[in-house]
Amino acid sequence: MSAGHSHPQPPLAAIILAGGSGTRFWPRSRKARAKQVLKLDGEGTMIQGTVDRLREMLSPENIWVITNPLLSPTIVEQLPDILPDRVLLEPEARNTAPACALVAFLLEKKAPETVLGVFPSDHTIGDPVRFRLVLRAAAHLAASGPKMVVLGVPPTRPETGYGYIELGAASVPVRVGEECISVRRVRRFTEKPDSLRARAFVRSGNYVWNSGIFLWSAGTLASAVREHKPEMAEVLERIAGAFGTPEFEARFKELYPICESISIDYAILEPRSAKGEALSQLYCLPADFAWNDLGSWAALYEHMADVNDPQSVNVIEASHGVEITSSGCYVYSPGKAVALVGVQDLVVVETEDALLITTRDGSQNVGKVVAELRKTGREDLT
Amino acid sequence: MSAGHSHPQPPLAAIILAGGSGTRFWPRSRKARAKQVLKLDGEGTMIQGTVDRLREMLSPENIWVITNPLLSPTIVEQLPDILPDRVLLEPEARNTAPACALVAFLLEKKAPETVLGVFPSDHTIGDPVRFRLVLRAAAHLAASGPKMVVLGVPPTRPETGYGYIELGAASVPVRVGEECISVRRVRRFTEKPDSLRARAFVRSGNYVWNSGIFLWSAGTLASAVREHKPEMAEVLERIAGAFGTPEFEARFKELYPICESISIDYAILEPRSAKGEALSQLYCLPADFAWNDLGSWAALYEHMADVNDPQSVNVIEASHGVEITSSGCYVYSPGKAVALVGVQDLVVVETEDALLITTRDGSQNVGKVVAELRKTGREDLT
Repeated sequence: MSAGHSHPQPPLAAIILAGGSGTRFWPRSRKARAKQVLKLDGEGTMIQGTVDRLREMLSPENIWVITNPLLSPTIVEQLPDILPDRVLLEPEARNTAPACALVAFLLEKKAPETVLGVFPSDHTIGDPVRFRLVLRAAAHLAASGPKMVVLGVPPTRPETGYGYIELGAASVPVRVGEECISVRRVRRFTEKPDSLRARAFVRSGNYVWNSGIFLWSAGTLASAVREHKPEMAEVLERIAGAFGTPEFEARFKELYPICESISIDYAILEPRSAKGEALSQLYCLPADFAWNDLGSWAALYEHMADVNDPQSVNVIEASHGVEITSSGCYVYSPGKAVALVGVQDLVVVETEDALLITTRDGSQNVGKVVAELRKTGREDLT
Repeated sequence: MSAGHSHPQPPLAAIILAGGSGTRFWPRSRKARAKQVLKLDGEGTMIQGTVDRLREMLSPENIWVITNPLLSPTIVEQLPDILPDRVLLEPEARNTAPACALVAFLLEKKAPETVLGVFPSDHTIGDPVRFRLVLRAAAHLAASGPKMVVLGVPPTRPETGYGYIELGAASVPVRVGEECISVRRVRRFTEKPDSLRARAFVRSGNYVWNSGIFLWSAGTLASAVREHKPEMAEVLERIAGAFGTPEFEARFKELYPICESISIDYAILEPRSAKGEALSQLYCLPADFAWNDLGSWAALYEHMADVNDPQSVNVIEASHGVEITSSGCYVYSPGKAVALVGVQDLVVVETEDALLITTRDGSQNVGKVVAELRKTGREDLT
């Protein structure tokens, strides 16, 4: 039981979403070496950081990892204490709704009151202590009825690379550590806005960034899937029914691809009544824990520069650096001496078999390189 | 005897100047891997190209190479048919005058009429056939009296990185192949001008680029050294006297460092009388054989881009290239896939232990990187 809460901590389980195969960190990220298994900003890999933040709140049997067969050997190696049957290998990627719902059905029969937290495996969080405080408060809220909770991050800049959440009416106050934070209903999810809209969002004070972290009880999510996606629910319940038996793997492989490929936001959180009222009891708990989704090399640069005026420094990951009238550059070239002479705002990333040269702005378009390589028969480099 | 000449071809010997230890092609060039032993633009290394251009005019015993102990193993390996005693190892660098004069004294006793051609080992020449035609004409001129000849290249742009030669009065016409070229006296050597002066030089039509290629007979040069630099002449004659004996190496090592360190231009070609008249009979034979001294990565880019609008192309030396809205870049990263995204006019060079990132303009300042590395105890990278 955590200090300052009047109720015992509800049972908690985590779903780590680790099936992504992003191309935005090419050439470091590859099909079998996606962003979540890379050491981008610190000691461990992104997925190791994600699990480490949760470890003191969760025992290993309550950590579930959803990934794919290409990535799982690396993930199992990086997370040696995860239980083997908690690593679920999607035979085909079906977006987030089937993945989250499957775990809900797996837990529903034995422990429907378990609060499930959904966590992307490739984001950074700068303040893990505050993160856990917020998470405990959100878990209490999710356990206090058929409520769904999303963690929102108050925006500090008009970022166009993030999804936003429009907040609705003020609702119950929630205790986060020694603070009291006002939890509000979610009015709407908005995907990446253009910069004009992003600026308006930030000015209005009524929008937060969507952290991609959701909480709900297993029973609440299972019911919501049965209500909004009955066909998906039927398929997933058949798969869940075989868990722990020798048939599970074959049934998972056979049936999972039947599920509709859809995100949890669209499938469960967004459906509205004919009058436009939200059908789900969705609440947003706004709290800043220095969250960054590291969506590009430029975002990694900004995260690592970590100074008031990031434009003035270079981030050089190399054995030695020489900087002559250069600024704002990110260079990754492990083991080499790197020299910058008269260059600004570049991103240069060197791996064993590839060299990317772009600008911080241009790093948004690195996916085009991967597309070009696939088109020209160089899949081996992607 | 070459067609079109009325006199037999004079005996010719070549002095290949290969002692330079430039830093402008860092990180490819290093102390023991200077520009002249690098493959910068083609099949062979710069010094191999230099010797290959001359090979059909000269037998191996007439090719002399001046270099240093650090570079000689590589040079001997790259030039397997050079005679071992024709490779002269300067115990200390003394600039070009002692090196050229030593060979003159070595040949003077047995064959003073031999025409000596002095050739930098790290320049490119695009038209070797024309180059040899010009060279034959220059050799005839040098053999026809106590004349000294320098090859000049008509400037095609106001280059600030080259030395210029101001031409004097028109003089004898010289036959070059089927053409007749007017040979002129040299009025003055001018080191790298600023861009205002460079533009004035090019406009005037009275200036050519100094190719660094000189011709004179062994007797003429030996006499000129005795006249203008009597102390140097004395030392070098003592060294030359031991050539072919077991004492040569020791004497070379002991005495050569006594010589004044001075360029052949200053020592022999520039001395003037009290009235300002040139003391040497120095002629310039202007002829374009697509010469480029490749003084920087930017110069190499321009040489290799080899199109009317070099700004529009990228030169990528790699196993694979992907170019997305990028132009004007030079990238060297052998064996790797290189991707350029939204970048212009960059120079990126990757070696086993170093990575240089600069612009075409900035590549003039690469020497500062080497200076910085030496200052900070990283001699190993220079």
